[in-house]
Amino acid sequence: MNAFDDLLAFQRQTEALSSVAERLGWDQETVMPRGATEQRSEEMAAMEAVLHERRTDPRIGEWLDAASPRTEAETRIAALIQRDFTRASRIPARLAEELARQTSLAQGIWAEARAADAPEAYLPVLDQILMLKREEAAALADGGDLYDALLDDYEPGMTGARIAQLFDRMRPRLVALRDAVLGTERQPQPLSGHFPQETQLRLTRTVATAFGYDWSRGRMDIAVHPFSSGRWQDSRITTRVVETDPFNCLYSTIHEVGHSSYELGIDPDYAFTPLGRGVSMGVHESQSRIYENQMGRGRAFAGWLFQRMSDAFDGLNITDPDAFYATVNRVTPGFIRTEADEVQYNLHIMMRFDIERDLIAGRLDVKDLPEAWNARFHADFGVAVDRPANGVLQDVHWSVGLFGYFPTYALGNVYAGCLDRALRAAVPDLDAALARGDAGPAVEWLRENVQRHGGLLAPTELIETATRAPVSEAPLLNYLEHKFGSIYGL
Amino acid sequence: MNAFDDLLAFQRQTEALSSVAERLGWDQETVMPRGATEQRSEEMAAMEAVLHERRTDPRIGEWLDAASPRTEAETRIAALIQRDFTRASRIPARLAEELARQTSLAQGIWAEARAADAPEAYLPVLDQILMLKREEAAALADGGDLYDALLDDYEPGMTGARIAQLFDRMRPRLVALRDAVLGTERQPQPLSGHFPQETQLRLTRTVATAFGYDWSRGRMDIAVHPFSSGRWQDSRITTRVVETDPFNCLYSTIHEVGHSSYELGIDPDYAFTPLGRGVSMGVHESQSRIYENQMGRGRAFAGWLFQRMSDAFDGLNITDPDAFYATVNRVTPGFIRTEADEVQYNLHIMMRFDIERDLIAGRLDVKDLPEAWNARFHADFGVAVDRPANGVLQDVHWSVGLFGYFPTYALGNVYAGCLDRALRAAVPDLDAALARGDAGPAVEWLRENVQRHGGLLAPTELIETATRAPVSEAPLLNYLEHKFGSIYGL
Repeated sequence: MNAFDDLLAFQRQTEALSSVAERLGWDQETVMPRGATEQRSEEMAAMEAVLHERRTDPRIGEWLDAASPRTEAETRIAALIQRDFTRASRIPARLAEELARQTSLAQGIWAEARAADAPEAYLPVLDQILMLKREEAAALADGGDLYDALLDDYEPGMTGARIAQLFDRMRPRLVALRDAVLGTERQPQPLSGHFPQETQLRLTRTVATAFGYDWSRGRMDIAVHPFSSGRWQDSRITTRVVETDPFNCLYSTIHEVGHSSYELGIDPDYAFTPLGRGVSMGVHESQSRIYENQMGRGRAFAGWLFQRMSDAFDGLNITDPDAFYATVNRVTPGFIRTEADEVQYNLHIMMRFDIERDLIAGRLDVKDLPEAWNARFHADFGVAVDRPANGVLQDVHWSVGLFGYFPTYALGNVYAGCLDRALRAAVPDLDAALARGDAGPAVEWLRENVQRHGGLLAPTELIETATRAPVSEAPLLNYLEHKFGSIYGL
Repeated sequence: MNAFDDLLAFQRQTEALSSVAERLGWDQETVMPRGATEQRSEEMAAMEAVLHERRTDPRIGEWLDAASPRTEAETRIAALIQRDFTRASRIPARLAEELARQTSLAQGIWAEARAADAPEAYLPVLDQILMLKREEAAALADGGDLYDALLDDYEPGMTGARIAQLFDRMRPRLVALRDAVLGTERQPQPLSGHFPQETQLRLTRTVATAFGYDWSRGRMDIAVHPFSSGRWQDSRITTRVVETDPFNCLYSTIHEVGHSSYELGIDPDYAFTPLGRGVSMGVHESQSRIYENQMGRGRAFAGWLFQRMSDAFDGLNITDPDAFYATVNRVTPGFIRTEADEVQYNLHIMMRFDIERDLIAGRLDVKDLPEAWNARFHADFGVAVDRPANGVLQDVHWSVGLFGYFPTYALGNVYAGCLDRALRAAVPDLDAALARGDAGPAVEWLRENVQRHGGLLAPTELIETATRAPVSEAPLLNYLEHKFGSIYGL
């Protein structure tokens, strides 16, 4: 037996255990009895301990040294295992434990601080986490850039410098578009009314089906913050319902269907290997965003949805499909990233990217963070943050140690722009299908050109192979200017 | 640090991982997408491999040798760990994994075979599992009796020979009672009508609450075969609904509430130790059966339930509480163990016990099992099995490798008989509470005298301490003869 087969067999079990840990997380957020939190944290800690031990098992190094991969896929598997092994081995067990403990603690403190709108108790904990993350980054960077070492975990091969250049190119056109849109007379009407939970959920299931969600390998439940979870034969989505705002449920579901479909669309031969999952957070987000925005918020699908919503809710205050399309794409000033429209979303990301780079580089102290946040928000959005819950406390990411994660959201949008251009060229009559509530032709193209590859190709390579063009922000910006120019009559 | 503390810390993680594996089993039978069976079997096998490795970790032997338990509880913990370590060390890792994988797969095949009423595809899988279980039994028995080695896992200290003697003592009185009951003129009226699922589930929740189920540490879901799952802060129950037979849902729920309450009633200090779970399947079943039968099917609670059901379903075809009490305890010929009345239930067990002993001993081949089942059923119950789903396919147990498990159900009934006698003496006004739909005083007595001890006392010791009398089948048989003699006017 080739050492590579031993390595694969060992990895197979690790992948299965990791999938179990993820399923446990799903359970906690959806169905777990409320009195079980202490027990669950003990169970999660035990799973983490087992996983950490396996990821740093010295036999991995020996197998890798002796392995003879026989195919392109095997070569890539070995490279991905090598990468994870190197990263895991560089982080001292003490640091990993301390990070796990502090971030689990911080999550609760963050939630309380956000609820109480009071950052004081939270900032010292964040400071602690930042210190640990910088220590982790230094261990991972091995002399290189700290921020790059963290970013690389979410978007392999990407650097802070390249992100900064990308954002510098994007910002002026986005700001110009935002200012033009907000400055024009023609403003879409908001949707109003009361939309019962059961009807929303029924309609949302229909919409998830329209986007090809495979219910035999998934399910939908309610959670506080929508997420998707799992892969291969079991990728579940969650949603939430706000009875005054059905778009919340509908579009967060389309978004999560995009994430889940990516995992479910991967070549089944890759299951239980490092190829059997989305290759990066940016590519993941490209799938959720192209489902949600380029398709879900496009004119064709909006027309179908308008009819379905009018029927389901016995009429709407918006009475024609063009007005409904404008409503779905309404651009308004707002503090919250997750509620931002397509025009402003990336501006929220750019601000977080600059701030977290400063924090990791030591150019910004946590004690000065709220002030820095508010100043930057005012500069970028022209509005003063009214309260911390709408400002520095709005995102959970930093509390759980996710530094270097935010830019992958914007990268996802950029990738989605590239993919959408190629998709539209390859499937010229896509809008006819979407107008019938059928995203099938798009799903098929995305599965064939992106999803099925799993981790086989590196992120940029994957997008460039799929689109036969270099990755560029231009398609996204052109799409946004065209779409919002037309909606707002610019 | 005492070696015992090292042992405890290690065991704590093992208990947590074992609890994760059980939660995964719950997921599979309640909420898992139907397309995820292969993946789940791989995940279960990986968990089983980790658990097996931990249970056979040579350090356990070293710690046990060096440990100095300081209390009675610690001495018992050390003994239980020693017992599991010895058992686990005898089972090769390959066999443990293979069993986990095969039984996880067989569960789905069994369910399909039962639904299709076609045992053909299922028998070869069962044959495979039987072969693995015989291999396991041989490893565990270490030269002793194969069946005893399996039985001992569910009812420590019990043997097939003692069960056979017990059943030989019980059978004549049960058969005589059954024949007398079925031969008399006075036959209770069956319940008839249509009982909508939602109403059944609502009423069932009320009934679970009446029996003290702690919803903050549990939940109720639908499953093909009702079961309870988990412990400490998270013990969930499942039920099923038959719209022509509300007793199915109601009484299976009271039964599972008994199981879950046992786990939830254990001293919280025992959590994540071997004391933190029910001490045997027989004692477990004593809790579920005393909840379901001695209380749930008693005259006092039946009177309360009659009123609740009459209200919930807008009247019943049974119009007075005494007739309802007789209906609830109706003895009829029937194929299904789980639907059997108290008089015939143990006869179903005796039949399975003899058959599975023959299978394990190699005296009966799986290919001959359907025929053997049908012949024995006809001999014991005087009726020919009409279809496999009502015969050999009715129980999941053998598919999941549970050989040696069935007799613990009858033992549970025997223990429940003993406990009921002691409980009634200690709480003479219990019926007054049950007549108000409040099982509280019984739950309290059982918690104090049985449940809270967890694994601290061995099964027989526990029952004898609680009842201050030797374990005997007499209280159960006396109770049955008295109860059914009175209902049927014998």
